[in-house]
Amino acid sequence: MAEHGLIFVISGPSGSGKGTVVDKLLESNEFVLSVSATTRAMRTGEIPDKSYHFLSREAFEEQIRNNGLLEYNRYVTGDYYGTLRSEAESAIAAGKDLILEIDVNGGLQVREKYPDTILIMMIPPSFQILEHRLRSRGTESEEKIQKRLQVARNELSQMHNYDYVVCNQEGPDGIEAAAKDILEIAHAERQRLDRNRDLIRSLLNQETKRGE
Amino acid sequence: MAEHGLIFVISGPSGSGKGTVVDKLLESNEFVLSVSATTRAMRTGEIPDKSYHFLSREAFEEQIRNNGLLEYNRYVTGDYYGTLRSEAESAIAAGKDLILEIDVNGGLQVREKYPDTILIMMIPPSFQILEHRLRSRGTESEEKIQKRLQVARNELSQMHNYDYVVCNQEGPDGIEAAAKDILEIAHAERQRLDRNRDLIRSLLNQETKRGE
Repeated sequence: MAEHGLIFVISGPSGSGKGTVVDKLLESNEFVLSVSATTRAMRTGEIPDKSYHFLSREAFEEQIRNNGLLEYNRYVTGDYYGTLRSEAESAIAAGKDLILEIDVNGGLQVREKYPDTILIMMIPPSFQILEHRLRSRGTESEEKIQKRLQVARNELSQMHNYDYVVCNQEGPDGIEAAAKDILEIAHAERQRLDRNRDLIRSLLNQETKRGE
Repeated sequence: MAEHGLIFVISGPSGSGKGTVVDKLLESNEFVLSVSATTRAMRTGEIPDKSYHFLSREAFEEQIRNNGLLEYNRYVTGDYYGTLRSEAESAIAAGKDLILEIDVNGGLQVREKYPDTILIMMIPPSFQILEHRLRSRGTESEEKIQKRLQVARNELSQMHNYDYVVCNQEGPDGIEAAAKDILEIAHAERQRLDRNRDLIRSLLNQETKRGE
């Protein structure tokens, strides 16, 4: 019943299943996914403005100066990644609920600019399982796996200001259950009283009119 | 994933469908219903400690003095109604989620004592529909109906501090949908980060141990 679209940030370490869960959520047609902006080069198979908004470094830095980004980050590679304010604002103004799949640092930046943002952290059932999931991909070096575990540790220790925690349990139903958890969170958030003040006001006005 | 039971207060004017929705919620076996205490005389068909905890006025007033009530109210008839603290505390300590079906005044008293309480208001789609529902019962005098509408107006105008609003829409699916809304709210609330600090702590501890 909320009166405009909401912003849901979904964060979680690599191996938490975040990407798969977000794909499931998009199937519900209740959300649109925010497309990130980046300065890194386009890779084979990527589609501009669908995979990413590809920006030159100059254009990205101009967006930073003009407060045109809801959040951004500069990677060790020197590349920028971020969320364009215009993209998010047009979606929520159109009444669409927006998913941002970004890290904790980005999530907290969005919350600063939109205090109404809902921050959801996806966690694995344990670090052993997270490590197992990363290894079973079979594509990454031991160094990269250790780095990802380190990043996971940092992310989880910085999540104090997050609103919700969703665990992607082991087993075939894990993803399905986590997606359902997030859908329920979204439905509940839409029914918060402070997002339905107009509804209450019109209900009471109508009543007052009858009472005149 | 919450670590102890939660208290859900469900309020709503007469005719909002609150009672029927609460019955539906109890079918899910996810909640227990708090039995109110009262000093009014037992009526035919009522079962002590199931319909109400029937207390003498002296016993009720002693509970008031000893801070033994989460909330209470004295009606114009002189009868007291309230929720025993012992009843609520033993349920939530046992990990059960408790439903209190009480008015806004009672809900706000409970919130004072347990800031963690979740306050849900059930509303009708409109006052015309509320009035229609009250009339269609065919059991109440015009005076009583007008009184109920007045109470509804007061309740809705005092709900600023409530957390959620759930509308019982017209039609055969209204009750079912409202019960589903409340179930989703309950599921979301159990996943709030601040109710799962222990889970996060143990996840991080486990990780720290691995890192040693």
